[in-house]
Amino acid sequence: MPLTYELLTADSHARRGRIHTERGSIETPVFMPVGTRGAVIHLDSRDYENLEIEVVLGNTYHLMLRPGAETIDAIGGLHEFTSWKGHMLTDSGGFQVMSLNDNVRVDDDGVTFTSIYDGSKLRFTPEDAVTTQEKLGADIQMALDVCPALPAPEADVIRAMERTHSWAARAKASHQRADQALFGIVQGGIDPALRVRSAEHLANLDFEGYGIGGLSVGESRVEMMPALNAALSQLPANRPRYLMGVGDPARIVDAIGAGVDMFDCVLPTRLARHGTVLTSHGRVNLRNAKHARDKGPLDPANPMSRDFSRAYMRHLFQMKEPTAARIATLHNLWFLLDLVAQARRAIEQQSYGSFRASIMEIWG
Amino acid sequence: MPLTYELLTADSHARRGRIHTERGSIETPVFMPVGTRGAVIHLDSRDYENLEIEVVLGNTYHLMLRPGAETIDAIGGLHEFTSWKGHMLTDSGGFQVMSLNDNVRVDDDGVTFTSIYDGSKLRFTPEDAVTTQEKLGADIQMALDVCPALPAPEADVIRAMERTHSWAARAKASHQRADQALFGIVQGGIDPALRVRSAEHLANLDFEGYGIGGLSVGESRVEMMPALNAALSQLPANRPRYLMGVGDPARIVDAIGAGVDMFDCVLPTRLARHGTVLTSHGRVNLRNAKHARDKGPLDPANPMSRDFSRAYMRHLFQMKEPTAARIATLHNLWFLLDLVAQARRAIEQQSYGSFRASIMEIWG
Repeated sequence: MPLTYELLTADSHARRGRIHTERGSIETPVFMPVGTRGAVIHLDSRDYENLEIEVVLGNTYHLMLRPGAETIDAIGGLHEFTSWKGHMLTDSGGFQVMSLNDNVRVDDDGVTFTSIYDGSKLRFTPEDAVTTQEKLGADIQMALDVCPALPAPEADVIRAMERTHSWAARAKASHQRADQALFGIVQGGIDPALRVRSAEHLANLDFEGYGIGGLSVGESRVEMMPALNAALSQLPANRPRYLMGVGDPARIVDAIGAGVDMFDCVLPTRLARHGTVLTSHGRVNLRNAKHARDKGPLDPANPMSRDFSRAYMRHLFQMKEPTAARIATLHNLWFLLDLVAQARRAIEQQSYGSFRASIMEIWG
Repeated sequence: MPLTYELLTADSHARRGRIHTERGSIETPVFMPVGTRGAVIHLDSRDYENLEIEVVLGNTYHLMLRPGAETIDAIGGLHEFTSWKGHMLTDSGGFQVMSLNDNVRVDDDGVTFTSIYDGSKLRFTPEDAVTTQEKLGADIQMALDVCPALPAPEADVIRAMERTHSWAARAKASHQRADQALFGIVQGGIDPALRVRSAEHLANLDFEGYGIGGLSVGESRVEMMPALNAALSQLPANRPRYLMGVGDPARIVDAIGAGVDMFDCVLPTRLARHGTVLTSHGRVNLRNAKHARDKGPLDPANPMSRDFSRAYMRHLFQMKEPTAARIATLHNLWFLLDLVAQARRAIEQQSYGSFRASIMEIWG
């Protein structure tokens, strides 16, 4: 098996674990930064090492269109292409296929869409997602799922879920690379009963890990948690659980408390580019005029930015200097990576409840 | 005296020297990257250290308008503002004042111009340039000069030169900071006789160093050299000579051969952002389709980029990923810093002539 999950310690539902792969191991819970087009925006693999990132995401949608999965395959895969020795995970491309343009038609067999790069009409099936991701060559690939925009009528949510189930089975049947893990994705909207059905169905297909998709797409944290708990209740304890697209501190600590092991999100890097940094006292908008002569650092705890004053960062953001977005990106990623590192320690020390409470005081 | 020049070795006219300041020392010939608005675009002071940059330039025009010299002064000066412990030099602002917009009026007393940031009408005199740069607080400041766009009628070149001389004397009279050096600037277009007159005039004013301005502004390398040689012939041997705005390899090695000690240029960083890198085999345009599957590095000699393939860089440039511009910026700066380091060694070894010839084979 290309990927196994080892549970080290639990504190109530929170899990401190370790994922083992042919490449090495991943300490969980883990936050995985997103390198959409083969690079985390403003960073390169040397920065990933400095940040001690364990897993970098790649977006199949973008990479299969530019430079193309064949090109990346010819170069030796995503690791070689991006010069990154750590772990990689590719999403299935489904989320972008279905959200990045209006001319999308999903049928039982697959999805027809137009490329955002050149407007060409393209067809994509669960089997295509598997073979494309095999060419990209990440350590973990995701089965193609159908993710309806919420809120949606129940019938749409059910149809999307059932297609996701059928596509998951097809993905598993077509997946061949023995050195690459395949994760199935649980859907079902925010209805706990549907989430139970979906997780049970996926678990019976026996994947090496499970994504929980279609959450944090507009619903509140309070609406999200019952659906998440319902899904987790049906997933096997000896497999990693990955809550897709969730990156705000409150949701992360809640989800870790519920038993989630893996997270990814573009939020910290996107916020950074807009001048918002995550600090131990909450969000700070560096564009604010009050920082104009503030000699203090963004957050004295954060080694990625503590050389630089808020005054300097505010000036660079006002001037649209890319240096600002880069420093803020390093800052925010360090913040979230440190947050999950703190969560890991809290679970080890059986103090996850009080850790969660301390985070909620600021981010809840 | 805040700045002295020590001549270590000469090889014909080429000088291997060391500038001593209250901050430390600068090995010359030196290439000084430009941090226009307080940062070299895409980089920060940690990168300057990794590149072993000795002097970073700041543009007075941009900094006095945004965030303002008073703000930088309040924070403790440019070093504190940019978190940079190495040397800094500020230009006088004159070049940008006179080139960045059309509504410029130069008279004997100073220059009236409109801000590119908010269109406000502003007045700037040689005394203003001195006090503004004293507030910015770099180790070296430049006297305000008048730099006519070439080609220009001889009368215009002479009038600009004579104003520059009068402004240089006024700058020297108003300069007060004992911990900051003030350099005068030689003008005179491409006419060697005018350059002799200008350099002689400036030398008699006795500055701590001399800029040679108004060259490499459109004229060819062959046209530039007689004017440069004429200026250098009148400058004192015990002061550093700074050829302003020159950054292409051929001109740099020619100018070092003529006795220039200091260089700055935005060319390597601007080229980098457009996908062009300087290599030991010449310029390479990374956007070219032929690199699409090229696994080779940009230049195996360059430690700033050798982790990354041309295929990866081409892809990132096609996608306008800022990571590409950053890596190429580091690459090009390393190239030019290494070029002048090679020049220093060649002078020490009395082999500057053959070094120059080897560079000209590729860049001449």
